[in-house]
Amino acid sequence: MTDLAARLDALEHRLQLAEDKLAITQLIASYGPLVDAGRADEVGQLWTEDGEYDVEGWAMRSRADIHAMVLSDAHQRLITNGSVHFLGPVWVEVAGDEAKAVCDSLLVLNGEEGWRVARGSVHRFQLVRDGGAWRIKHRISRQLDGSQSSRDLLPL
Amino acid sequence: MTDLAARLDALEHRLQLAEDKLAITQLIASYGPLVDAGRADEVGQLWTEDGEYDVEGWAMRSRADIHAMVLSDAHQRLITNGSVHFLGPVWVEVAGDEAKAVCDSLLVLNGEEGWRVARGSVHRFQLVRDGGAWRIKHRISRQLDGSQSSRDLLPL
Amino acid sequence: MTDLAARLDALEHRLQLAEDKLAITQLIASYGPLVDAGRADEVGQLWTEDGEYDVEGWAMRSRADIHAMVLSDAHQRLITNGSVHFLGPVWVEVAGDEAKAVCDSLLVLNGEEGWRVARGSVHRFQLVRDGGAWRIKHRISRQLDGSQSSRDLLPL
Repeated sequence: MTDLAARLDALEHRLQLAEDKLAITQLIASYGPLVDAGRADEVGQLWTEDGEYDVEGWAMRSRADIHAMVLSDAHQRLITNGSVHFLGPVWVEVAGDEAKAVCDSLLVLNGEEGWRVARGSVHRFQLVRDGGAWRIKHRISRQLDGSQSSRDLLPL
Repeated sequence: MTDLAARLDALEHRLQLAEDKLAITQLIASYGPLVDAGRADEVGQLWTEDGEYDVEGWAMRSRADIHAMVLSDAHQRLITNGSVHFLGPVWVEVAGDEAKAVCDSLLVLNGEEGWRVARGSVHRFQLVRDGGAWRIKHRISRQLDGSQSSRDLLPL
Repeated sequence: MTDLAARLDALEHRLQLAEDKLAITQLIASYGPLVDAGRADEVGQLWTEDGEYDVEGWAMRSRADIHAMVLSDAHQRLITNGSVHFLGPVWVEVAGDEAKAVCDSLLVLNGEEGWRVARGSVHRFQLVRDGGAWRIKHRISRQLDGSQSSRDLLPL
C-alpha cells in the first residue's frame, strides 16, 4: 500500500511538470495571435500585475504598460496594415513555481510591396505560477543582429 | 484503497488531457510538411470524412475536397517551385471529445528571385476525437491584413 | 491491489511516452536559439558522440564535426551579420529508446537591405535515448525546392 502511494506521489509530481511545460508552451503560443488581433486585455493577462517586457527601445514595467503598448499608435499601425508576430516553439525549464523559456521570433509585416520580414529576434522569459496560472514575470527581446546582447540571452 | 483508486482516476483524467493536447499539437505540426510534400492521402486523413477547410476564396466541404486541393494544379504549382506552409505552435483547448486550436502561419514561396513571404495568416481549428484519433472538423484561415475577419478568429 | 499496480504501470508507461515527446520537442526547439548564439558546445551536445548531420553540401559525421560547423567561418559569418535558424513545431513519434521527428524551417538572414528569407527546408531527425537524455543520431535537411529528395523525407 505504502509502495503504491509512493509511486502515485512520484507520478503526480512528474505529471505536474509535464502539465507545467505544456501550459507555458501554450501561454507563449497565444501571444502572437492575440497581439496581432489587438486583444489588449488578453495580452495583458499573460503577464503578472507587475510583469515586465524589455524590448529594444521600449521598457514596459507593468501589466498596464503592456496593455497600453497593444493600444498604442505604433502597434495599432502595424496590425492595421497587417502583421504577424510569429514566435517559434519554446525551450522551457520549470523549477517549482518558477520557469524560464527561450524562443525565436520573426516580425513579418504587410505593406504596399507585399509581405516582408522586418525583424528576427530571440526572447527570454521568466515565468511564475500566479494564482493557479502561469504568467510572465519578465520578458526580454533582442534582435538577432549578431550583437552580444542577443547572444547573452542564451543558454537557457 | 478507495483513496488510491480515486487518485488514480484523477491522474488518468489529467494525463488524458495532456495526451490530447500533445496529439493535437502533433497533428497540426504535420500539416505543413505533408502538404508541401504533396502527400494528399495523409493530408486528407487529418480531417474527418465531412471535415471542412475555409480558406480565402476556397471552401472545401469534405475530406475528398481537401484531397483534391493537394492534387490541384494551383497547389502542385506552388510545391513544384518550392513552398513552405509554415505553421506556428498551436494554442489549444480540449473539452472532452472536442477541441479548439489557433495558430499563425507564413506561406513562403520559392521563385526566380529567391524565397519570399507570400502571406501571413491566422488559423482557427475545431477538432473532434474520431475513432481514437483527433481529426479536424473545421478549419478557417484568414490573412493577417488588418481585416475584421482575421481578428474575429480570436480569442480561442 | 494487483489491479491498482497494473493501472499504475500503464499510467507510468503513458506518462513516459508523453515526457519523451516533450523532451524531443524541447531538444529541437533549442537548436535554433543555440546555433544563432554560436554556442558550439551546447549545439554539439544535442547530438550523440557519433551523430550525423547531412545538410546540402555538408556531411557532418560526429559531434566534433557539428561543433566545428558552429565555429566555422561560414557559420560565424551568418550569425555575425544576424541570422535566425527558425525551426517549426516538430511532428514526433517515439518507439522505446528510438524516435523520429520531422519539422520545417526557414533560414532568415540580416543584411544591408534588411532581413530576407534565404531558404525554406524540411528536416528529418532520428533520435535515441542516450544516457538518460534524448540526442540526435541522424539529421537530414533538404531545401523545399520541389525536389524529390525533399519529398522523400515524408511521411514520418
